[in-house]
Amino acid sequence: MKKSLRILVLNGPNLQLLGIREPGIYGRASLAELESLLRAEAERLGVLIACYQSNDEGRLLDLVGTARGLYDAILINPGAFTHTSLALHDALAGVALPACEVHLSNIHSREEIRHTSLTASACIGQIVGFGFDSYLLGLQALVRYLNQSSAH
Amino acid sequence: MKKSLRILVLNGPNLQLLGIREPGIYGRASLAELESLLRAEAERLGVLIACYQSNDEGRLLDLVGTARGLYDAILINPGAFTHTSLALHDALAGVALPACEVHLSNIHSREEIRHTSLTASACIGQIVGFGFDSYLLGLQALVRYLNQSSAH
Amino acid sequence: MKKSLRILVLNGPNLQLLGIREPGIYGRASLAELESLLRAEAERLGVLIACYQSNDEGRLLDLVGTARGLYDAILINPGAFTHTSLALHDALAGVALPACEVHLSNIHSREEIRHTSLTASACIGQIVGFGFDSYLLGLQALVRYLNQSSAH
Amino acid sequence: MKKSLRILVLNGPNLQLLGIREPGIYGRASLAELESLLRAEAERLGVLIACYQSNDEGRLLDLVGTARGLYDAILINPGAFTHTSLALHDALAGVALPACEVHLSNIHSREEIRHTSLTASACIGQIVGFGFDSYLLGLQALVRYLNQSSAH
Amino acid sequence: MKKSLRILVLNGPNLQLLGIREPGIYGRASLAELESLLRAEAERLGVLIACYQSNDEGRLLDLVGTARGLYDAILINPGAFTHTSLALHDALAGVALPACEVHLSNIHSREEIRHTSLTASACIGQIVGFGFDSYLLGLQALVRYLNQSSAH
Amino acid sequence: MKKSLRILVLNGPNLQLLGIREPGIYGRASLAELESLLRAEAERLGVLIACYQSNDEGRLLDLVGTARGLYDAILINPGAFTHTSLALHDALAGVALPACEVHLSNIHSREEIRHTSLTASACIGQIVGFGFDSYLLGLQALVRYLNQSSAH
Amino acid sequence: MKKSLRILVLNGPNLQLLGIREPGIYGRASLAELESLLRAEAERLGVLIACYQSNDEGRLLDLVGTARGLYDAILINPGAFTHTSLALHDALAGVALPACEVHLSNIHSREEIRHTSLTASACIGQIVGFGFDSYLLGLQALVRYLNQSSAH
Amino acid sequence: MKKSLRILVLNGPNLQLLGIREPGIYGRASLAELESLLRAEAERLGVLIACYQSNDEGRLLDLVGTARGLYDAILINPGAFTHTSLALHDALAGVALPACEVHLSNIHSREEIRHTSLTASACIGQIVGFGFDSYLLGLQALVRYLNQSSAH
Amino acid sequence: MKKSLRILVLNGPNLQLLGIREPGIYGRASLAELESLLRAEAERLGVLIACYQSNDEGRLLDLVGTARGLYDAILINPGAFTHTSLALHDALAGVALPACEVHLSNIHSREEIRHTSLTASACIGQIVGFGFDSYLLGLQALVRYLNQSSAH
Amino acid sequence: MKKSLRILVLNGPNLQLLGIREPGIYGRASLAELESLLRAEAERLGVLIACYQSNDEGRLLDLVGTARGLYDAILINPGAFTHTSLALHDALAGVALPACEVHLSNIHSREEIRHTSLTASACIGQIVGFGFDSYLLGLQALVRYLNQSSAH
Amino acid sequence: MKKSLRILVLNGPNLQLLGIREPGIYGRASLAELESLLRAEAERLGVLIACYQSNDEGRLLDLVGTARGLYDAILINPGAFTHTSLALHDALAGVALPACEVHLSNIHSREEIRHTSLTASACIGQIVGFGFDSYLLGLQALVRYLNQSSAH
Amino acid sequence: MKKSLRILVLNGPNLQLLGIREPGIYGRASLAELESLLRAEAERLGVLIACYQSNDEGRLLDLVGTARGLYDAILINPGAFTHTSLALHDALAGVALPACEVHLSNIHSREEIRHTSLTASACIGQIVGFGFDSYLLGLQALVRYLNQSSAH
Repeated sequence: MKKSLRILVLNGPNLQLLGIREPGIYGRASLAELESLLRAEAERLGVLIACYQSNDEGRLLDLVGTARGLYDAILINPGAFTHTSLALHDALAGVALPACEVHLSNIHSREEIRHTSLTASACIGQIVGFGFDSYLLGLQALVRYLNQSSAH
Repeated sequence: MKKSLRILVLNGPNLQLLGIREPGIYGRASLAELESLLRAEAERLGVLIACYQSNDEGRLLDLVGTARGLYDAILINPGAFTHTSLALHDALAGVALPACEVHLSNIHSREEIRHTSLTASACIGQIVGFGFDSYLLGLQALVRYLNQSSAH
Repeated sequence: MKKSLRILVLNGPNLQLLGIREPGIYGRASLAELESLLRAEAERLGVLIACYQSNDEGRLLDLVGTARGLYDAILINPGAFTHTSLALHDALAGVALPACEVHLSNIHSREEIRHTSLTASACIGQIVGFGFDSYLLGLQALVRYLNQSSAH
Repeated sequence: MKKSLRILVLNGPNLQLLGIREPGIYGRASLAELESLLRAEAERLGVLIACYQSNDEGRLLDLVGTARGLYDAILINPGAFTHTSLALHDALAGVALPACEVHLSNIHSREEIRHTSLTASACIGQIVGFGFDSYLLGLQALVRYLNQSSAH
Repeated sequence: MKKSLRILVLNGPNLQLLGIREPGIYGRASLAELESLLRAEAERLGVLIACYQSNDEGRLLDLVGTARGLYDAILINPGAFTHTSLALHDALAGVALPACEVHLSNIHSREEIRHTSLTASACIGQIVGFGFDSYLLGLQALVRYLNQSSAH
Repeated sequence: MKKSLRILVLNGPNLQLLGIREPGIYGRASLAELESLLRAEAERLGVLIACYQSNDEGRLLDLVGTARGLYDAILINPGAFTHTSLALHDALAGVALPACEVHLSNIHSREEIRHTSLTASACIGQIVGFGFDSYLLGLQALVRYLNQSSAH
Repeated sequence: MKKSLRILVLNGPNLQLLGIREPGIYGRASLAELESLLRAEAERLGVLIACYQSNDEGRLLDLVGTARGLYDAILINPGAFTHTSLALHDALAGVALPACEVHLSNIHSREEIRHTSLTASACIGQIVGFGFDSYLLGLQALVRYLNQSSAH
Repeated sequence: MKKSLRILVLNGPNLQLLGIREPGIYGRASLAELESLLRAEAERLGVLIACYQSNDEGRLLDLVGTARGLYDAILINPGAFTHTSLALHDALAGVALPACEVHLSNIHSREEIRHTSLTASACIGQIVGFGFDSYLLGLQALVRYLNQSSAH
Repeated sequence: MKKSLRILVLNGPNLQLLGIREPGIYGRASLAELESLLRAEAERLGVLIACYQSNDEGRLLDLVGTARGLYDAILINPGAFTHTSLALHDALAGVALPACEVHLSNIHSREEIRHTSLTASACIGQIVGFGFDSYLLGLQALVRYLNQSSAH
Repeated sequence: MKKSLRILVLNGPNLQLLGIREPGIYGRASLAELESLLRAEAERLGVLIACYQSNDEGRLLDLVGTARGLYDAILINPGAFTHTSLALHDALAGVALPACEVHLSNIHSREEIRHTSLTASACIGQIVGFGFDSYLLGLQALVRYLNQSSAH
Repeated sequence: MKKSLRILVLNGPNLQLLGIREPGIYGRASLAELESLLRAEAERLGVLIACYQSNDEGRLLDLVGTARGLYDAILINPGAFTHTSLALHDALAGVALPACEVHLSNIHSREEIRHTSLTASACIGQIVGFGFDSYLLGLQALVRYLNQSSAH
Repeated sequence: MKKSLRILVLNGPNLQLLGIREPGIYGRASLAELESLLRAEAERLGVLIACYQSNDEGRLLDLVGTARGLYDAILINPGAFTHTSLALHDALAGVALPACEVHLSNIHSREEIRHTSLTASACIGQIVGFGFDSYLLGLQALVRYLNQSSAH
């Protein structure tokens, strides 16, 4: 029997504030609601997910660094670390699992410092601007990617 | 009876070369195959799509500029114009339809000039790096966006 | 009998959207209304004008490139090409007719990319920020310029 | 009876040298001749003007700072202060009268430091490159602007 | 009876070294002495303070992120994170409490990287260069700010 | 009997417009009201102040240049000169009195040109963003600084 | 019998103005004269050439994009597109034919924007500054290159 | 009897992945093997070492901040924090122990962001590019440095 | 009888502080002593000098602007205006008298902002770093220059 | 009898390593082979050449500086000095002989520092990317240039 | 019998001044003393060294260019050429021997121009800041590297 | 009897071309004439000079490096090395003799690369723009400087 795909879902700094922080930019639903939507979608897609949020770059690095073997892919919203953490880039590149970077808001419409990403080049791809849908689409993208890869 | 959503699908410069041009970066399937996949997905989602490819910035501006009334949203891969065409940004901003920018390759892993986008800030969001799936996910993203908007 | 001065009026990308596109920035009147105002002013000044709008950089280059002999001066709103088209600069410099660059909005109050102009250095002068009046003043400026030149 | 519009005309540093300084760039007529042309045009337009020239940034700031109530608009050639005086920008923004920035020469054809303006973003618009006509057109532009505003 | 204002006092990286680290720049008194001075001043002002120091960006983000409801304002010396932590900016902006950034030394007299602040734009204001007095003045500034706000 | 400390209070360009200019940024009270608040605070602190405002960089330089012997410290809001006047930096450095730079608004939340200060490195410290309180806190900061210095 | 080599000769924007536009920089002979010289040289070298000029970036992209199979190499003067068209770079890279970029004038002696080339890195080499000879040498260079390649 | 020198050995983010992460760049041996080699070398040199690895910037700052008294010198590979952590620079500068920065790979042959170091200026020196030997040489360098210093 | 050459000697901002301001950089002698040395040297050279110092950019512009006819050359130490006053450059260029820029200190050994000069390109030459001798050498340089010019 | 044209052929630093150094970039033939090909081509063209290679910038400057009178033109591959030697630019500009800069590899496809040339603006033109053919074409280009010049 | 490893030791510009030049930065011992220490270390390691110093970039290029066959590795302190000589980079890359770049001082603590190296990317690694020990460690590093390579 | 001061006069690259190279910029007299003028001036001042010109950076470094003991000061025109030779800066700083940098032309009126000097910060001062007089004034400046220093 084929083993289910396992996907690590990581939310970076300040995403615990979802629904509270700047709702004009990030919307009014909470992180719990987001994770519950993700779990429903995971079930629909027949995959397992494990969700973590941390404000701590070190903990995110630990989680990415130990992902190999435990997970088949990583879905990550690095929050502000997207633009400042070369270490997170290195962790993603080092663990060499397919990853998808997602953002709730359209980073290209915000301050210039948010227009480029240090982490995206260590991922398969990036989805930005679709709110919670960025995550749901990212999950789908990873599942399709893994299925296509295993098909070869 | 509810009218079907209509989505304009635009492919910019050199995308007619799909399957021919640098298959290491862009894959081996042709633009026709991509459009056929998109049509299947559109059917699944119950929306109508119209697909155009042009190497001509002026024609792309014309197509975007006349989209209001004819289409409900725009799915666009501006190719290299992503990084050089302020006019395309202005057309998308001017016509004020929800748009999704997609890219086959992960622009963040390529030359520095491709790390930023002039056009993305005039779109709802951007999806990069998932090959043809970038388009399929983008189509889905727009349909969800339109349904959520019309729900309000 | 003195021959009337002939002035080529060129509108660049997205100006066909006048009255539709971002009325907060560009106002609510259409391109047709602008051209009609320009024709009235041309009549008042005793000059002939020919008006073209194109989203196509190539067509604008063709029109500028063939202007010598057909026209005595060029009034041009290059739209977004102002900031990206070195080719348009070269066409204006190459054809060596007196030209006036105009902009509806005050480009200095907008995004930084719009604060400088690639094309203006190939013109006699530039008028920005006065809406349709930018064009009417530009027409006047060119007529005065031509009359002063021919007076010498 | 409708009160005449009053317009403050300010000439910044070195414009007292008009006709003397670099005639290849600025022409051979003097500041007095310019002001006399402006007075004739003002009369034609039915407006009152008051002309000042100063090399002193502080005096220019004083004149702008006290303009509210005394004048309806400001026509200003800030000379080299265009590119260095954030204080002049702030004075124009602070006094909140419609202003038009003018330049005799085409600043876009000169050294790079003259290609951008610190002051223009605090004005309605900018007219450059038409010699004395830049002022005459600027006066006209302000009068039209004020008439259109008061018409609403 | 009016409830006392509660202010969260945060010291960022390396401030545990106060009195040890580079006394030429930071002075010879310890963090404990600073906090004791702050408590005395808080008492004088009739407010409650809670003081934390952490070298851990994640812990600082946690403390800021949970401040809403627990505190009325934040007094923060982000140390070197001032110049590198976009995440701390986002936490302060997200929690939307009035904050005051303070620095012991005059950051404008040090290396260029310290001349700008990523975090200050998410604060009400910033006080730099007055040693321990920067904190005491900052506390005062926040209390005045809160009193003025509640007075409206 | 101990001589009172004397502090020179300088307001730079456009601060005469206080209460008039951009009240959204600078508030609605006038410069006279600010100076009156400062006098009350000075009295409370037992120091003497002399207040000057000038739009004239030269006059500000003169005032700073002659301050030694007449004053014990300088409280200065250089307005826009903060970002453009190296001469003011040099005057403050040259006269070598303790100085405190203050700003009404949070310069870090405004345009990029206002994020750095040419003058602050010639001061003891800087206080920004607390409106009139920036001045009152600055006065206090200088008095504390002078008292601590004289205590040694 | 060995098939003749076929070479596509492309002239970009404003080269239709040859002999008219800025003869100080570009010389006095026309594009027709250039093409006739090229045909004579092609005959001497025993190769076939097809010459196109277009001001339209889209048409140039179409011509490059369809060159594979029809031509063995491309000789191109991209004019001002050299410095602005990433799309032209991508077309040349995508079609993967040996290409030679030529310029009439020495771009290194002109404005800074002309000192670098976006397109040259997608070519075998570049020849600049020798007027019409740049083309004749370029043709020769390509023929030698093709002969050497086919010799292996 | 002379007390042995004690050296703190710190490995920063992602170095726990040694032998796993990008072996093409970092080699195939693990962190444990590296530490075991270091212990052997320390024994040979007659010094004591204590080895820590952490992905957590805060923990690294804590370890550096408490090093004074416990250790005589610091051998540190800050990983990606080399290029982003001003706080780590400040900790090293603050604790004022002789430190040696080491890197496994030649940072000068990698991406541009890795060509400069924020932390090295707070160290005695830096050794890069010799794999595990970078550490062994660094240990030696520190021991020599300490012996030379104590000899004076 | 040959008329004596007349030279305008201008000292810019803060030079009234000579002997007081930062004697480590500028020396201990006063402006009066400098001017007295200059007068002695002028006498030796058989020329007339007129010395002015002003902190006021406007007054310096006035003095330069009226120099033509009154003086044969200008010796100027623009102080900090060297690096910020484009207006002073324009005045010197406009009045078109031979000018020599002098500086007491070696501006190349100071902060980066002092390494370039906005004003020097409007002068014949520049002499920096020789204290009062910079002026004496500058006077000599101008006299030699004028004599050589008049000799032709 | 017409005197043969004499052309100085200069090879700069590291070109003695031809055939040894990085054959993937520079090919496998030696400098001697290159010079022998050049001599054959010179004979074919009826011109005389003198070939020098030096790693010494000073010797290259000497050779260029004494070329006038001895040679009619210069063919030069400045190697890495292309990007760093302003002195070589000055020598070429100073001696004022027609020169052609050549490069074996396509400098536009290499590191960014090699995309611009300090020396090319002192030459007639530049030929890059065609291996040894760059030299042969350059020789031809100079001969044509000299013949055209002498024809006038 | 195994042949001894031979290592070329190169000292670049101004290193002949060791012990004389800026002893605060470079120490008081001479180049001869350094070379004598190196010879002792070489003997200890059982390798042969040949030491050269030159102020002449050309001679350094010659020495590097002829090293292949004569030496097994290169130990080089390029002095100021580190930051300006692309030619030295190319020589090291071209000769393709393992090289180690060393510096006496910590280049990261000096002026910004010294923070990056043009030459280091053509070396195996770099050792900076340990005075003469930088060389001794570098020698050791190369010997270890060569032994490890030959062991495979 | 007091020993005469000895001054080393160094001319850098291309100055052997004086009178030949670009006479519009550098004048028509030769290097021999310049040196003869310098010898006459040296005699007048009662000092000894030794003049060298070299195109070879290494030889210039040798001459500067051995100057201590042989000379009391250095007068140097580093030509283009002014802007590119950090090694020459280091030699001048290392030998620690008073030096004066001179230039014939006004480097501030030429290309931007010539507006800053790498070498000047290692000199006492710099004199530019006065042709041969730059040298004569420089000689004088050094003699005055040496006499003032020895007077203390």
